[in-house]
Amino acid sequence: MQEDTPYDIVLHNGTVLTINADFDVLDRGLVCIADGSLKRIEEAAANEPPPEARHVIDARGGIIMPGLVNSHTHAAMSLFRGLADDLPLTNWLNDHIFKAEARWLNPESVYAGALLSCAEMLLSGTTTCCDGYFFEDAVAEAVQEAGMRAILAQGIIDFPAPGVPDPKDNVAEAVRFIKTWHGKTSLITPGLFCHSPYTCSEETLKEARKVADEAGSLLQIHVAETQSELHEIKQTHGVSPVQYLDRIGVLNAGTLLVHAIWVNDADIACMAHRRVGVSVATESEMKLASGIAPLPEFLDKGLAVGIGTDGSASNNNLDMFREMDTTAKLHKVKRLDPTALNAKETLTLATRIGAEAIGLGEQIGSLEVDKRADLIIIDTHKPHLTPLYDPVSHLVYAASGSDVRDVIIDGQIVVRNGAPLTFDLEAVVEAVQELAPQIASS
Amino acid sequence: MQEDTPYDIVLHNGTVLTINADFDVLDRGLVCIADGSLKRIEEAAANEPPPEARHVIDARGGIIMPGLVNSHTHAAMSLFRGLADDLPLTNWLNDHIFKAEARWLNPESVYAGALLSCAEMLLSGTTTCCDGYFFEDAVAEAVQEAGMRAILAQGIIDFPAPGVPDPKDNVAEAVRFIKTWHGKTSLITPGLFCHSPYTCSEETLKEARKVADEAGSLLQIHVAETQSELHEIKQTHGVSPVQYLDRIGVLNAGTLLVHAIWVNDADIACMAHRRVGVSVATESEMKLASGIAPLPEFLDKGLAVGIGTDGSASNNNLDMFREMDTTAKLHKVKRLDPTALNAKETLTLATRIGAEAIGLGEQIGSLEVDKRADLIIIDTHKPHLTPLYDPVSHLVYAASGSDVRDVIIDGQIVVRNGAPLTFDLEAVVEAVQELAPQIASS
Repeated sequence: MQEDTPYDIVLHNGTVLTINADFDVLDRGLVCIADGSLKRIEEAAANEPPPEARHVIDARGGIIMPGLVNSHTHAAMSLFRGLADDLPLTNWLNDHIFKAEARWLNPESVYAGALLSCAEMLLSGTTTCCDGYFFEDAVAEAVQEAGMRAILAQGIIDFPAPGVPDPKDNVAEAVRFIKTWHGKTSLITPGLFCHSPYTCSEETLKEARKVADEAGSLLQIHVAETQSELHEIKQTHGVSPVQYLDRIGVLNAGTLLVHAIWVNDADIACMAHRRVGVSVATESEMKLASGIAPLPEFLDKGLAVGIGTDGSASNNNLDMFREMDTTAKLHKVKRLDPTALNAKETLTLATRIGAEAIGLGEQIGSLEVDKRADLIIIDTHKPHLTPLYDPVSHLVYAASGSDVRDVIIDGQIVVRNGAPLTFDLEAVVEAVQELAPQIASS
Repeated sequence: MQEDTPYDIVLHNGTVLTINADFDVLDRGLVCIADGSLKRIEEAAANEPPPEARHVIDARGGIIMPGLVNSHTHAAMSLFRGLADDLPLTNWLNDHIFKAEARWLNPESVYAGALLSCAEMLLSGTTTCCDGYFFEDAVAEAVQEAGMRAILAQGIIDFPAPGVPDPKDNVAEAVRFIKTWHGKTSLITPGLFCHSPYTCSEETLKEARKVADEAGSLLQIHVAETQSELHEIKQTHGVSPVQYLDRIGVLNAGTLLVHAIWVNDADIACMAHRRVGVSVATESEMKLASGIAPLPEFLDKGLAVGIGTDGSASNNNLDMFREMDTTAKLHKVKRLDPTALNAKETLTLATRIGAEAIGLGEQIGSLEVDKRADLIIIDTHKPHLTPLYDPVSHLVYAASGSDVRDVIIDGQIVVRNGAPLTFDLEAVVEAVQELAPQIASS
């Protein structure tokens, strides 16, 4: 190690997918990183060794690309992965998930579940997640330990919730979370997460919006997830969930609408007019049989759409490669049009556009000079990735999280040769394994 | 190694999913194998070491289960994986796949592509596949080398085809293939594969049916795959594709209908009456935007349905775990019913019922005494498989092929600790990598 080395990390000998606006692909690319940001991204000069750096990483003919952006998850819900499946949504939520949450969530269990999910996300190439849950300080501590980038939000719901027994405190608790984590680390951006328009009152929603605007924070909210929500909101408020949120002033560019399945053309026009971000969580929405969001229609209207896994209690994994694959295929078969949502578009949603949707478009989502250095290397020397005609096709239709070899976040190497460097994987897995028998018995 | 050891292989210290008719699960199971078949499947006695065997395999708390049955594939099409995507079916087939097949298929390339797919299938837990293609002798040689179980069929189409320039020879060539491979090895069962009711004449179909019945062989055929096929057959023959095949006598219990997407209630009733097997290839059908087969309706009528990946030019991988996941989720969201196609049903289709669908139900598909010893071990010590409340849920909704640790077929260990024992993986991958630049340039 030399103190005067210009670069911290140099990656070479791989196909670089920049996923910039021109979707530039460098067949034999070179990426140079210093001070946590991208300094050079270019074709390597023939017959020249890579520039000097503290760490020179040979991609061995693999793919170098931006880390994936998981635009919607509840990381700690890994605690409940596979606890209850194949059930109607209300039964699943009320009889299983809400009960288990009420009984078993505490700062220690949330930390353990969140760290397990960070491990799963990092090992499968996700470098940024957008999370909302309870005891979110514990999530933040896990994310910080893992060295992951995240938008994190303390959940707001007008019922007694884990850690917030009196709903009157819910917004204040979210404000406290923002104050605690604002500026504490460059990787964590605190935000707000209102559960939904049917579990938060108009007053709560307006208050949360005000707080978000004042803090310059993202406000996430589940909306138009099920047909019954659509009917309920129409009955109560006379308009669709999206129109209702718009009427009370919740929708603006600092909003992430999650799911947005039961929306009509007027709703989509309204969303586009307000420039909200959208997160679609295809696999979870399929598994819970919520419906199919009109994702291609969102893109037609110019909306920034991200792909999310949702929590692993309803997916049941956090593999963004599988999520891309299923999302692209679902819209093809829904439209009976194989050209719908092509591989390039889909990959862009999981990276650059997904970053825009959660308000981090300036910092991450593509490999461009001066963006933060969040990137991954895919090992393509696998039977299921052979032959390699088109890296974009492989990433969306053939690869899976287990093909990720190295992960760099903010210029720090967090996964090397498939092994995490920031935490003890065995201990993280065991911590949740120890909690499981109790949770299962309840 | 002792010559008088009663068992060849003993597996212990894992949860055994038998997938027998009662779906028995043994929490701390023991599986004993001799002469290629299953001799004992039971709960291990507490505090007793496993019985002696040449190979004692410790599942280390993982899952021991039947190998997966891929009921429809074209193994050699890995040659064209990712060569053309996101295109309308006719354009994809006529302008890309048929052209590439005409130019690049020969016994050597088919052997290389098929062996690559065998590698991918074995490493991801598939122990049996049902394949149909051209130069099928080369596929059989690859399957034999890999030590995989398969139903293999030489393709029959009424056009000049790779290796069969004069379509008049197509059935004769299929007969020759059956004679060549019948009884040659216990792992390979030859059959027939007619491409479709719109590419094979009535005469060809009847002749193939006659040959299949005389040889006791399975006759596979793509049917009712697209809306345009439905229209074409209705226009030409006045009835649906299924009704047409029934009218000319093609449908009986020795038939595997592949896709069967555009079928109505009368078609399904006819299929059930004739006791045909069905193979559904969800991911490929989604990607090509062909449509969604009424799988739950097939099951309601008692049809034996298998899950297939199709070839990796239209999927684009052969991972049966992902195929299970997507299949279950797709039918939930299609019906807006999360109870549709539950995890147990889905896993059964990929094993026992899938084996029935392709005519191997007596031999494989479940762990039962006297069945052949085709089984796999899943390593559950992974973040995305933690915690483990329900192994069935994890296999369908969370696992992927890369979680398979060991694979045994017909009592032979073919994959151990994630590495193939029957072939040189690096050489298999390189053989196709060497063909790829030519194929890409055409």
